[in-house]
Amino acid sequence: MPYFDAASSLPLHPVARQALLASLDEGWADPTRLHREGRRARLLLDAAREAAAEAVGCRPDELSFTSSGTRALHTGIAGTLTGRRRVGRRLVVSAVEHSAVLHAAEAHESGGGTVVRVPVDRTGRVSAEEFGAALREDETGGTALACLQSANHEVGTEQPVAEVAESCAAAGVPLLVDAAQSLPWGPVGGGWSLLAAGAHKWGGPGGVGLLVVRKGTRFAPPPPADERESGRSPGFADLPAIVAAAASLRAVHAEAGAEAARLRALVDHIRARVPELVPDVEVVGDPVRRLPHVVTFSCLYVDGEVLLHALDRAGFSVSSGSSCTSDTLTPSHVLRAMGVLSEGNVRVSLPPGTTEADVESFLAVLPDAVRGVRDRLGAPAVARRGPEGRATEEGSDGRGFTRPRAEEPRGASGGTAAEEPLPAPALTVDARGRRCPVPVIELAKVIDRVPVGGTVLLLADDEAARLDVPAWCGMRGHEYLGSDGHAYRVRRLA
Amino acid sequence: MPYFDAASSLPLHPVARQALLASLDEGWADPTRLHREGRRARLLLDAAREAAAEAVGCRPDELSFTSSGTRALHTGIAGTLTGRRRVGRRLVVSAVEHSAVLHAAEAHESGGGTVVRVPVDRTGRVSAEEFGAALREDETGGTALACLQSANHEVGTEQPVAEVAESCAAAGVPLLVDAAQSLPWGPVGGGWSLLAAGAHKWGGPGGVGLLVVRKGTRFAPPPPADERESGRSPGFADLPAIVAAAASLRAVHAEAGAEAARLRALVDHIRARVPELVPDVEVVGDPVRRLPHVVTFSCLYVDGEVLLHALDRAGFSVSSGSSCTSDTLTPSHVLRAMGVLSEGNVRVSLPPGTTEADVESFLAVLPDAVRGVRDRLGAPAVARRGPEGRATEEGSDGRGFTRPRAEEPRGASGGTAAEEPLPAPALTVDARGRRCPVPVIELAKVIDRVPVGGTVLLLADDEAARLDVPAWCGMRGHEYLGSDGHAYRVRRLA
Repeated sequence: MPYFDAASSLPLHPVARQALLASLDEGWADPTRLHREGRRARLLLDAAREAAAEAVGCRPDELSFTSSGTRALHTGIAGTLTGRRRVGRRLVVSAVEHSAVLHAAEAHESGGGTVVRVPVDRTGRVSAEEFGAALREDETGGTALACLQSANHEVGTEQPVAEVAESCAAAGVPLLVDAAQSLPWGPVGGGWSLLAAGAHKWGGPGGVGLLVVRKGTRFAPPPPADERESGRSPGFADLPAIVAAAASLRAVHAEAGAEAARLRALVDHIRARVPELVPDVEVVGDPVRRLPHVVTFSCLYVDGEVLLHALDRAGFSVSSGSSCTSDTLTPSHVLRAMGVLSEGNVRVSLPPGTTEADVESFLAVLPDAVRGVRDRLGAPAVARRGPEGRATEEGSDGRGFTRPRAEEPRGASGGTAAEEPLPAPALTVDARGRRCPVPVIELAKVIDRVPVGGTVLLLADDEAARLDVPAWCGMRGHEYLGSDGHAYRVRRLA
Repeated sequence: MPYFDAASSLPLHPVARQALLASLDEGWADPTRLHREGRRARLLLDAAREAAAEAVGCRPDELSFTSSGTRALHTGIAGTLTGRRRVGRRLVVSAVEHSAVLHAAEAHESGGGTVVRVPVDRTGRVSAEEFGAALREDETGGTALACLQSANHEVGTEQPVAEVAESCAAAGVPLLVDAAQSLPWGPVGGGWSLLAAGAHKWGGPGGVGLLVVRKGTRFAPPPPADERESGRSPGFADLPAIVAAAASLRAVHAEAGAEAARLRALVDHIRARVPELVPDVEVVGDPVRRLPHVVTFSCLYVDGEVLLHALDRAGFSVSSGSSCTSDTLTPSHVLRAMGVLSEGNVRVSLPPGTTEADVESFLAVLPDAVRGVRDRLGAPAVARRGPEGRATEEGSDGRGFTRPRAEEPRGASGGTAAEEPLPAPALTVDARGRRCPVPVIELAKVIDRVPVGGTVLLLADDEAARLDVPAWCGMRGHEYLGSDGHAYRVRRLA
């Protein structure tokens, strides 16, 4: 029963389990107490801190154990924003950060701060130049903090952390690196100022995170005050879990080199084979500058949740960024920021120890699983290979009707967006009230009924349409003309 | 090696250990995921929530697991203050709450809110009437929240939670109960609105707390937003630890009745014997309305930290609220609020299973331990039994020189404080730069050198003097005349 959701959480590493069990008898006392039980607990805590700091590449007194990677991010962001409040209230983040960072950014905005979200390219990567330029003081004031993940949690793309850290150093802005996905594979290089991660991503227990704040970084621990962990993590922690987290981080680092090379080859194989085996699939994320173990693809005309359940029944546990798998019924913000197809989205993240046979049996099962979902949805016939066309990102034409960006191909007609009249639709399809992927399927069903050059007006109130209609146009070689509220216009080109 | 610091933390209960080990194999996955590993984790989490809710006496959907009791308090307080912000920004707390509550109150004050601290009597108990009166809206606005512990963590005194809950209900103010110390002994009765506790106090693992928010309580989860635990505890939790916490809470409740009766008798024995065995000891806290397992006493002319180490060498682990055991070199806020002696303070908190023999061996060791510390400090000869006199609480005379409150005995002289001239000291003792308990020892050494009715001026910049000089006067039957900054005046009465 292969578990292919390693980027979400891993089973306990044998070293973590061993360390946990070994420290249950001594790790229960309060390490701040003066008695022997307290002193023993303190020794365990100090040793765990030293081990974790060595693995991260920092001083022990720079590292605090928090109750999760999310808490480490929340505290790191709030503490730096407060500590550097005099400099300004600008916070610069990438658009594809983990929701813990983006929610902290929203909280900062609610409190009157400014958030600058640096966009990513179609692979999910920020431009180091663009990120560097975003650091500059503007009319909203100076930049207190920049946040950049080391690698993306949904598509695996690595970010240019070292280059961005250089820009940050030059601008005098501390850089917080969310290392949740990459720390299992090794320390993060570059001159970052803060770093956060969570142990369950490397086979440590849940409920343990790391927050590193380099000496010299202005930092004001968020209130309420608390004496523990330099004021950076209030409350009585689970010391055996901390010991297990530190021990397993060292252990996975010792194994990381060989395992990364092995998994990287397996992921390369998946990336190559999936589009051959499954028609109308978009494999997303950077094919080279990526995590060793993560690959994400989206399948046209597929309901992500139904596909997940089909794969689950076949014995494969994966995750999805499709809107149907989200509480809010919106596609993952990462896929949105990348401008790629979100329907039928599957993230495969291989745990250490995954075999070639596991991967082959997944590849054997996937085509039938996708076909089954498409058949049930009454999806139109699919192309064996999609065209090379790219989905367009949206841009506003300034008249309420949102159009693709000017640099995207928009057909033969000239003139500026503001001058050009909107074509009258030859056909209108009402898919309001229908959920992803039905609106796109309905669009696909009628496109052949309008003449080449004619337009279809699709009415769809499902949030995924905003991403998937342009993506579909790109995959099918039609022209996406833009949207106005829940109305999408598409021009048939072939 | 008896461990008598149960109120600080307990070793893992056998049921907790068993539940932890049993859930390691299934409790590592993300319970929000749709795959089988996620669903299994979800089942564990749901079962733990039901078990904990049943033990607490609430609905499962009212209970969130947090990363500690401290976090539960922080979140409960912040969430209610925000949720009821329109009502007002008054927060009412007792003066002897856990520092987690008081630090949250300080954070509220820093943010412009109002905090009303309800004083306690000499046993550490609030008056339900006084607490009820404090709920009333005043010129600072309406009361958003009241916080009262079920029992005090340092002296064991139970608070009148049920009566206060009635006042709160009548005033329309939600009551948050910090049940950290009492929940191991059973559910908290009365109509509270919120409840917080931490698992390591009942033999569950560290890193697990409970926050209960009753339906109908206005509550706004503190930002940043997070999907887990109804937004009340962000980040990936340690599910096996949560399972262990819930299982052990049920187990300790099943054992609580018999064990409480047994430990209560042992504590009664300690309360009776310590003053017989050790001269100049003040046993503090309510002798009857108290936790079954906690007793606290203070020893005149004793350095708390040195006594702790002496007891530790003799094999007994206890804790202390003396200033010398605190990072800030101030006596515990609980002892200060009670107005009792803080030097040589010892808290004995018996874990379940403590035997009569354990207690007898402690009582056999204690007198020598105290005597040894007194001898090393060159303490003056001690009385076999202190007089019945009480230490006085301080009140200001409005002229800068702080005097005892008017209702305390202040000798034969009449007139109001504002009219009475301060007596010229017969003797001045300079103990500045000396730490607790030296200033009081220096005072004791010279008191016999002034005539009865004469006064001594003690100069002492140690914070403990503010508490211990009046307490010493009460124990020795001298009159405490008040303080002016670091100058304390004492009149010899006998």
